[in-house]
Order: sequence, then structure tokens, then C-alpha cells
Amino acid sequence: MDSVKIGLAGAGTVGGGVCRVLNRNQEQISARAGARIEVKYVTCRHPENRSDLVPLVGSLGIDWHEIVEDPEIAIAVEAMGGIEPARSFILAAIDAGKHVVTANKALLAQHGDEIFDAAAKKGVIVAFEASVAGGIPIIKAMRESLVANRIQSVVGIINGTSNFILTSMRKEKISFAEALSKAQKLGYAEADPSFDIDGIDAAHKISILSSIAFGGPISFDKAYIEGIRDLQNVDIEFADQLGYRVKLLGITKRRGTGIELRVHPTLVPERRLLAHVGGVTNAVEVKGDAVGSTLYYGPGAGSEPTASAMIADIVDVVRMIGVSSNHQVPVLGYKRKIENVDVLPMGETVCSYYLRIGVTDSPGTLADVSRVFADMGISIESLIQKEAVAGQGSTSIVLMTHTAWEAAVQEAIRRIEALDCVTGKIVLLRKEELN
Amino acid sequence: MDSVKIGLAGAGTVGGGVCRVLNRNQEQISARAGARIEVKYVTCRHPENRSDLVPLVGSLGIDWHEIVEDPEIAIAVEAMGGIEPARSFILAAIDAGKHVVTANKALLAQHGDEIFDAAAKKGVIVAFEASVAGGIPIIKAMRESLVANRIQSVVGIINGTSNFILTSMRKEKISFAEALSKAQKLGYAEADPSFDIDGIDAAHKISILSSIAFGGPISFDKAYIEGIRDLQNVDIEFADQLGYRVKLLGITKRRGTGIELRVHPTLVPERRLLAHVGGVTNAVEVKGDAVGSTLYYGPGAGSEPTASAMIADIVDVVRMIGVSSNHQVPVLGYKRKIENVDVLPMGETVCSYYLRIGVTDSPGTLADVSRVFADMGISIESLIQKEAVAGQGSTSIVLMTHTAWEAAVQEAIRRIEALDCVTGKIVLLRKEELN
Repeated sequence: MDSVKIGLAGAGTVGGGVCRVLNRNQEQISARAGARIEVKYVTCRHPENRSDLVPLVGSLGIDWHEIVEDPEIAIAVEAMGGIEPARSFILAAIDAGKHVVTANKALLAQHGDEIFDAAAKKGVIVAFEASVAGGIPIIKAMRESLVANRIQSVVGIINGTSNFILTSMRKEKISFAEALSKAQKLGYAEADPSFDIDGIDAAHKISILSSIAFGGPISFDKAYIEGIRDLQNVDIEFADQLGYRVKLLGITKRRGTGIELRVHPTLVPERRLLAHVGGVTNAVEVKGDAVGSTLYYGPGAGSEPTASAMIADIVDVVRMIGVSSNHQVPVLGYKRKIENVDVLPMGETVCSYYLRIGVTDSPGTLADVSRVFADMGISIESLIQKEAVAGQGSTSIVLMTHTAWEAAVQEAIRRIEALDCVTGKIVLLRKEELN
Repeated sequence: MDSVKIGLAGAGTVGGGVCRVLNRNQEQISARAGARIEVKYVTCRHPENRSDLVPLVGSLGIDWHEIVEDPEIAIAVEAMGGIEPARSFILAAIDAGKHVVTANKALLAQHGDEIFDAAAKKGVIVAFEASVAGGIPIIKAMRESLVANRIQSVVGIINGTSNFILTSMRKEKISFAEALSKAQKLGYAEADPSFDIDGIDAAHKISILSSIAFGGPISFDKAYIEGIRDLQNVDIEFADQLGYRVKLLGITKRRGTGIELRVHPTLVPERRLLAHVGGVTNAVEVKGDAVGSTLYYGPGAGSEPTASAMIADIVDVVRMIGVSSNHQVPVLGYKRKIENVDVLPMGETVCSYYLRIGVTDSPGTLADVSRVFADMGISIESLIQKEAVAGQGSTSIVLMTHTAWEAAVQEAIRRIEALDCVTGKIVLLRKEELN
């Protein structure tokens, strides 16, 4: 049987998983791939700490240039994470005519176009299934299995850390800070959790999916991003009462004039499957005009789930070694751009809204607030007016709107916050019915 | 741009959907495939009834031999359904060196080995994504995306008709017969519904998935099959009380000594996503040792969802035209058989059980029944003894067992039914915790 040699840069959680799974399931994998996949080199900053990998791989070193310069290596696997030196490694590997497999969403979201252009010129494959939603094969599903469809929307829980925090806040009635601390203790959140909780990581991923869905360039720089740092338990409880769960969603949709691309905490009806995706698990719903609604669920991170996706990419590449590049699946699904797929400014987004408005407990308050919505052409779907706490003289109006322009809602909020009867900032959460 | 010509045999719901979606989304599809896909011929028994297709295709005829004999046709698409003439068409197309796309699970479950052997000899592709779970890309996910994994189990709601009936029985508290009649009125069940409600269709599909999961031949003839025809509302209600939903599942699992392969109504814990898959929708859960649990959800049948899967196959084939067959994905995922993957007899299956036992309302009954389970080494997990109806002198014992050998449970049932205190047949349902 043939053997294909790969070089792996990065021996952390992900790189270690790749070595372990390739080794443990070698027989299965080679029976499927038709070739034995050998890890010739692993490079990392501290090889002395990864002696556990020595029996699993050819050699363990420190310099990724060895991988790039070895003509025996057919596939360069990047599991370093971060921008540099991952970007340099990948570009050098492409330049040396090697195929590339990576899990690096941050790099692709920011430098994908440069990397994909370089790969196209060399005729090599850059595969990145593991970059979005870990072990869930969402990239392949969208790029290959849904090709017949005009995609309408992609909506996903694609950051496990945030989903764990939101699930804990709701189930255990603990604050954001407490839930974050719990996630950190369990290893689900990093010491600096901002990429996850501020929505950056989810925005990287939904930007990649948006490009595959609609055929435009990766537009991370145009995504609207709002995280969960300021989310309060009171709003999770109101949402519950109204039949919704709060989830951090990555959302991209086709509209007549362009593409919506946004990440924010979102009310999801509890009758939808996405509402029942708890803990660190991920799920992505893709709607197409022919297939209707499909959903893909599984572990969004972790050593072996990520390795599962990377090895699937490696096997795909192994099969295409020696085949002319015009037979490859196009890197973002499209061989040519076909329509206007520019990202719309957030103000032009259409959504429905949950708003919590602190008001003084005085006659006419509700009329004043309602008048602003009417003036802005925003229609109220339902309303809860919370009873005043005796002696405090203040209360909350919680309401849900029908769909409205984001810009109109922001203007309504500005006007309502200026009313005398309104106390403090209005809390805004967006809602997706997913119907 | 290149053009690829296909011939389509069968212009029913599925064939019509393929023509319509290819036509409507031609620009999208060709931008992704890098080639224009043209339906040169459609053949069906009554072309005079499908004049709606005339504007969408090259020509409409009656004789599928035209497709086979035309050297311009690269891909033969089978959407006739049934065994013959579908089998003859596919074998003739393969013999003529054409690639084949089919949605025909009954044919593949029974004659897959013959068809796949013929295709292997000719070096052509037989693609069949649409044969299992309609628009859900489960074949590709298992065959390509999960290659790194030793698959542990595949469990799915893969018959929409049955799932619709079960959902209606539970939600509307109507009998099986009423729910079936409703499904027929809505077009979700055929005039002769036996393939769907007796589990045959689900068994065709799980047999195909089992083969992809574990690498053996398609073993439909060895599947244990039990449908939903005899299911009673009282058991759906008891299951509800116990925190379970009753679903018709296709199940295949790896065990030390072989493979389990079975279809039967099953109690699923309501906290699992599969329990929330209602109506005609399908979902399949696949567990692998590296990825963990993944789930794929979507429409399991229908004109355009099925067309979505068939067109994805067509595009996959288009990309591989002119490429040597050793670069193809192996038809059932494996290039060579690697281990013992024979299907176990049902008696050697391990499962946990729901049993409803009609008993006379007399002292010692529960002790007598419990004694049999103890003798057979079967451990009781929970028990409901329903109150006697005044004056009738009979009652029901409902119990759940821990995991046990099927053969032991069947023997226990035989012995319990022989007890004087037991009235009538025992109702048995199996349970899957899916943990």
C-alpha cells in the first residue's frame, strides 16, 4: 500500500489529537484512504514537553522550516493557531507545492484571501474543515452536499465557551461572571476569554461560512459583533417566560440587496432544536431553497473532535494527490463569483427585537413609549409590564417587536431613552424565529 | 464553460424535482461545479403527462435504453424507484461506462453488491446520497467526514411516514389507524403503507449506513425488523410518564463479536435531540471514538430535498470525470475489509426494555413476575403498577429493565406469559439511552 507523509506544525491540544487518532485508528483510516498516513515530522516550541508523541511520529523538532523544505512531505498540517508564524508556515508550504490542512479560523477569517490566492496559483489544496464547529462536518456539507441550493441562511451556535456560559447562567441561575469562572475552572474558557465571550471567534467562523454560502470573499471586517459579556440573568429569565432561550448565534442571511453577517446574543424559540443545544456543543442550521432546513450538531472543539475533522481533510487531500487542480472542490465552494454578495451595514439588517426598558411607575409611561414605536413604524408583538417594587417608584417594560429595520429600532431606542419617564439604558436583544 | 450531459430515467416526484432544481439554480450550480449540467433526456412511462418538463430538458421519451446508448451522456440518473427496471437500467449504464446517481435504497439494500461490483470493474462511480434520509448529507458525512473514527453506533429516525404517525399519535392522542389515515390524506403515506410502517424502508436505509459505518457488505437480509403497526397509545402515554418518546429507529452498533442491525419502535429519553425530531423530518446520530456524538437533521423525503442530494452527487461525479478510479471515494467508504463485521442474531443483541404485562389483581402477582426476571438475571430499573379498574380484577405492570440480552428477555417473557396471574400477551418495546 502507498504511504503519504505529512508534517505537522503545532503539538498542542489539536496537534496532539491528530497524532493520537492517526496512530490509534491507523488500520481503519488506511483501509478507507487506501494509503498509510505517516506523520514524518512534528514541530513545536517545546518538543521536550511532548515526549508522549515520540512513539507516534517520525521525529519531533522545533523548526517548521524542516517540514516545508522536505520534498517527501506531501501535506503540511498547521495546528499552531494564531496569526504568526501560522501564516508564514502555510504560505511557505504552499510555495513549496504542498497541500495544506489547517484548523485556524482566525487566520482564515483575516488572511484567507491571501492564502487561497497563493494556493490557487500553485494548484494545491487548502482544507479547513476543523476551522468551524470542530468535529461537525459543516464546511463539507455546505461546500459539497448543498451545491444544488440557493442558500438562504446559516445560523449557528459556533462558540462552545459562550454556549456553556449561557447554559450555566440559565440552568444554575448564576451571573455571567460566575459562569465564566466556572468555564475557566473546567478548561472551557481561556485565562483571557475575550475572543470567545466577545463574539470574535464566532464572527471568524460565521464569516467563513457566509463566504461558502453566498460566494463572496471572507468579510470578517464587515461583520457586526456583539458578545455576551453584558448579558444579565433577568433577561434570560424574561426570555424563558416568553418561551425563548438566549443563545450566542452567528447569523448570515441572503437579502435582496446583500448579505447580513452578524454575531449577537439571540432569543431562539424553545421549540427549535437549536434551543436545546446546551453546554459546549455546537450546531449549525443551514437553509436552502431546495433542501429546506438542515441542521448539523456535535462537539465544536476539543482535541479529538478537531483531529477528526483534520484527518478527514487529510484523507480528502490524499485521494486527490496527483490529480489536476481543476478537479478539486473550489476552496470556498464557488469557481466564480456570480452575484452581489456584499455585506450590508448593520442598520440595514431586518430583525425582531426584545427590549427591556426601565421606567418610572407613573401614569402615561406606556403610552409615551408606545408612541415612539408607532412613530418609527415598529409594531409591538407582545408586552410584559413588570409590577413596580413597592416604594421604589420604578418598573420595567419588556416587549417584543415584529420584524423591523435595525436603524429604526436604534433610533426608537435613542428617542425612548430621552423620555423623562425612562430610567437608564435600554437592554436590546435580537430574536430569530428560525421558521 | 464545459457542459456535462446527463440522462434521467424516471420523471415522478424525484425526477421532476431534479429537473426543476437544476433548471432554477443553473447559474449557482454551474458556478460551483465549473460545468453546465444539461439534462439531455428524461425517460418515463407516460411522457405525455409530464409536458411541464419539456422546457427544462433536451427531450422527453419513453425508453431508458436511449440514455444508455447515447455516448454523449456521461451520467445516468436513476429516479424510477423499485427493483426492475431500475436494476437493469443501472447495470446497463455501468456496462456502457457511465457514472450512475440513484436514490434507490430498496435496490441498493438488495442488489447493492452486484451493482457496486459491476461499477468497480468498469471504474465508474455509483453515488447514492439521496437513498438515505433524503436531503440530509449523511452518506457523505459518514463516508468522508468521519473517516478518522472507529464508528461505534448509528441511530436514526429514517422513515418520515412512521415518524409523522408516531408524532400524531402522541400529540393528538389518536390511534395508529387514525394517524395512518391522516398521513395518507396528507400524502405522507402511500395507499399500501407497509414498506414504511412495517420498518422495511428504515431497514433498507440502516443496512446501507451500517455497511458504511463498519465496512461489511450490505446485510439487509440479516436485519431485525419490527414496525409500528401494533403500537398502542397506552404505551406511548406510559413512555411519556417515564420521560421517553417512542420513535421508530434504525440502529446499528459495533459490539465485540459483531454488528447489531435492527429497526424497531424505541423509547428515547426526552432530553435527547432525537426525541424532539417530529413529523416527517429525519435525523441520524453517528458516534465515533474521536469525534464523539454528531447529529444530522433535515427533510427525509420530498421532491426537492431528494433532488438536492442527487444534484450534489451529480456535481461530485462531474468533478471526477476523467480522473482515474483509484482517486474515487470508495463506494461504501472502505477500500478493503478489515475486521469481523458480521451481523449478530437478534438474540445476541444487548438492549434495555420497556414491558407492559397484564395481570390479575391478586396478591403475589408482582412477586411471581419479579422472580422470573431474577432467575433470568435481568435487573429491573423502574416499575409502575397501574391501579386496578374497580370490578375488572385486572391491572398492568409496566417496568423498565437495565441492559440485558435479547434472548434472556424473550425467554423471561415466555415464562411470564405462562404464569396463571398473567393475562394476554406482554407488550415489549426497546429503549436506547443514547448516552
